[in-house]
Amino acid sequence: MAKISSPTETERCIESLIALFQKHAGRDGNNSKLSKAELLIFMNTELGAFTKNKKDPGVLDHMMKKLDLDSDVQLDFQEFLKLIGGLALACHDSFIKSSSSQK
Amino acid sequence: MAKISSPTETERCIESLIALFQKHAGRDGNNSKLSKAELLIFMNTELGAFTKNKKDPGVLDHMMKKLDLDSDVQLDFQEFLKLIGGLALACHDSFIKSSSSQK
Repeated sequence: MAKISSPTETERCIESLIALFQKHAGRDGNNSKLSKAELLIFMNTELGAFTKNKKDPGVLDHMMKKLDLDSDVQLDFQEFLKLIGGLALACHDSFIKSSSSQK
Repeated sequence: MAKISSPTETERCIESLIALFQKHAGRDGNNSKLSKAELLIFMNTELGAFTKNKKDPGVLDHMMKKLDLDSDVQLDFQEFLKLIGGLALACHDSFIKSSSSQK
């Protein structure tokens, strides 16, 4: 019988990102695209720490424009990954900067 | 006093990806770049489910070449995110295909 092992941390992350996208994109019945309203809910519930000081509604429009490669005013999963990747990169860079300044 | 809330699922994923990269890239003492040897260990320990049927050593060279945008034969965090993003996209697409074929 094949052994089913528990997922690794990387596999768990990939599963989480897919589940998060499906959950938020599916609010309007179409879980393959994240609308601007759905993106706003995602940002506020999942990324409050990043958005709490950015109450300017223009920021969302600007983000959407930057991420929405095919200009359909919605984000598909690939465009959503670009958002997560951008945030991860910013966190990583700030982490590196703060650890090197402590040396 | 400022309230410290527990991280959301998205924040946890971002933290995990940074920690995973730091852990694997740091094996040779330089935690800002993932060498080919470190990538192999990462793939085998974290992504065994994806790699178990790919024993051809040429696959690693091919992957490295595709991901290594600045051709320094190492992966920085941004290039590492491209690997994770590519895998997440492939999983998402296969999930969508399998759910639509079940309808």
